Amino acid sequence: MTDQSAIVSVDLGGTKIAAALVRTTGEILSQKSTPTLAEEGVAPVIGRLLAAVDSIIGNADLSHLSISGIAVAAAGVIDTENGTVTHSPNLPGWCEVPLKKSIEEALGLPTFLINDASAAALGEHRFGAGKGVSHLVYVTVSTGIGGGLILGGRLYTGASGSAGEVGHMVIDANGPRCSCGNVGCLEVLASGTALAREAQKLIQQGASTKIAELANGEPSNVTAKLVADAARQGDALAREIISQAATYLGMGLANLVNIFNPEMIVVGGGVAKIGDMLLDTARRVAIERAFRLPAQRVQIVPSRLSDNAAILGAVAFAQAAGVPTT
Amino acid sequence: MTDQSAIVSVDLGGTKIAAALVRTTGEILSQKSTPTLAEEGVAPVIGRLLAAVDSIIGNADLSHLSISGIAVAAAGVIDTENGTVTHSPNLPGWCEVPLKKSIEEALGLPTFLINDASAAALGEHRFGAGKGVSHLVYVTVSTGIGGGLILGGRLYTGASGSAGEVGHMVIDANGPRCSCGNVGCLEVLASGTALAREAQKLIQQGASTKIAELANGEPSNVTAKLVADAARQGDALAREIISQAATYLGMGLANLVNIFNPEMIVVGGGVAKIGDMLLDTARRVAIERAFRLPAQRVQIVPSRLSDNAAILGAVAFAQAAGVPTT
Repeated sequence: MTDQSAIVSVDLGGTKIAAALVRTTGEILSQKSTPTLAEEGVAPVIGRLLAAVDSIIGNADLSHLSISGIAVAAAGVIDTENGTVTHSPNLPGWCEVPLKKSIEEALGLPTFLINDASAAALGEHRFGAGKGVSHLVYVTVSTGIGGGLILGGRLYTGASGSAGEVGHMVIDANGPRCSCGNVGCLEVLASGTALAREAQKLIQQGASTKIAELANGEPSNVTAKLVADAARQGDALAREIISQAATYLGMGLANLVNIFNPEMIVVGGGVAKIGDMLLDTARRVAIERAFRLPAQRVQIVPSRLSDNAAILGAVAFAQAAGVPTT
Repeated sequence: MTDQSAIVSVDLGGTKIAAALVRTTGEILSQKSTPTLAEEGVAPVIGRLLAAVDSIIGNADLSHLSISGIAVAAAGVIDTENGTVTHSPNLPGWCEVPLKKSIEEALGLPTFLINDASAAALGEHRFGAGKGVSHLVYVTVSTGIGGGLILGGRLYTGASGSAGEVGHMVIDANGPRCSCGNVGCLEVLASGTALAREAQKLIQQGASTKIAELANGEPSNVTAKLVADAARQGDALAREIISQAATYLGMGLANLVNIFNPEMIVVGGGVAKIGDMLLDTARRVAIERAFRLPAQRVQIVPSRLSDNAAILGAVAFAQAAGVPTT
């Protein structure tokens, strides 16, 4: 490899800001992360983001490397053309924030801004599970459920950049209310929040489960991770909760198979780390329920890049958008 | 217009075969339709299709016009590259039928085969409600519910040509079984079949409604059209049945708004002819339930080409596929 250029890529999420120095080949040279502390407001978050980027650049060996730009994958609805965070459920108070301009003015480097789930789709397509695939749907199952679309080999973001909100498909017309205002969305039935909520409800109803023990008897301590831990330790109720969420996830994936006839669905995000217990059920339900032709065509696979999908996808996005690559 | 060439375009459906002579400008010069009689088998249907095309050509004034090809929009899963009807719920017995080859051998004209809902999407995009629109979802509400996708200004058909099956999104995880084997699909809740089934059920339960009168007291006579007729005459139960189906349709459209962030959704098909009573409710529900940004961006409009959408879209498809146009 004679490529001497690199990009600083940032994944700006509701909980943490992860920054990395990445070669345009996808090789990660260094990484740093810092809490977002979104509740402190927009300016302090941008300050922490800039500090993380500065720290990455300060520690880089610039005798062999030039930094050609900054790529940012942000949780929220992004106006990619103008480099603005339009709004973000995970970054309270962020409304029409010109993040690209702020970073360019502070650091003097060309900056590229993209939605995090779209970035993750690009990352898996360019560097991960979906190399060489033309039609790929990326689904992230985490606190919420989001998605990114690669159609005809290219990122598809729709008329105003917000396409791919696959977590906000109604799956159950009579289901619980979702944070988006709709009812019965995939997100409210199969996300990490849904796993924790269901476990809390059952514990409060007096169910006997190892989840309660892991949460020190305090239902508000219950997280999706504790449910997964209990399931791994053989807890029947935890397994049942995961199986139910996986069934809903499978219904959502079947919808995507019928709508997109994709070659591949990549499932990533924190909850996806539960692994086969979740994905095997979701895959079986999806294949059973989708049309035969597209069901035979699709592969439903776990993310290969895991937490780095968005970081790497933002690099691919910056390259496609014209950042110098040599 | 100096364009002297025309295409014979055929809409091959489960009930009828509609053929038309169409200028490449979209002007329909003549039309003919004949019943499909699918139950008689594949070869007789192809025979009737060829006869309809022959009749159109025989009646054309070929002194001023050359016929440059045959375009066929067929109900079913189509292998567009090979010109094969892979299978079709509406054409029993059609399995891997090389329709393009059959027509080319019989008539000696280049033939182009496409799925009917994809064709209708192309038709509305090229000649109808969606002219100049880049991202358009076409939804046909008829006996079943199907769809076609124009993304980035181009027809999107997925990895094996079957994308756009928007009628087979699960909307109600606990809903009734759909003919596709899944449960709670949009089709089983909001199609013409669903309207008729719901009315039949309520009549059999003893409900008082004008629908029963229009059906001469025989529940099995009830069709979606009778439900619509009764609703137009002010029948409360018929209006309630349509309102419920429209609400489900609105949920499905909200899903499509969140997934595709389209500029336009065009609603066509026989049931859509019920008009504002159906579409106003569906539109209101969709806009209420979808994310604000894509909801503000999308127009939800009725088909402009109505029954000719697929006929005209097949012409656009043949042109794009390289049929001579002058």
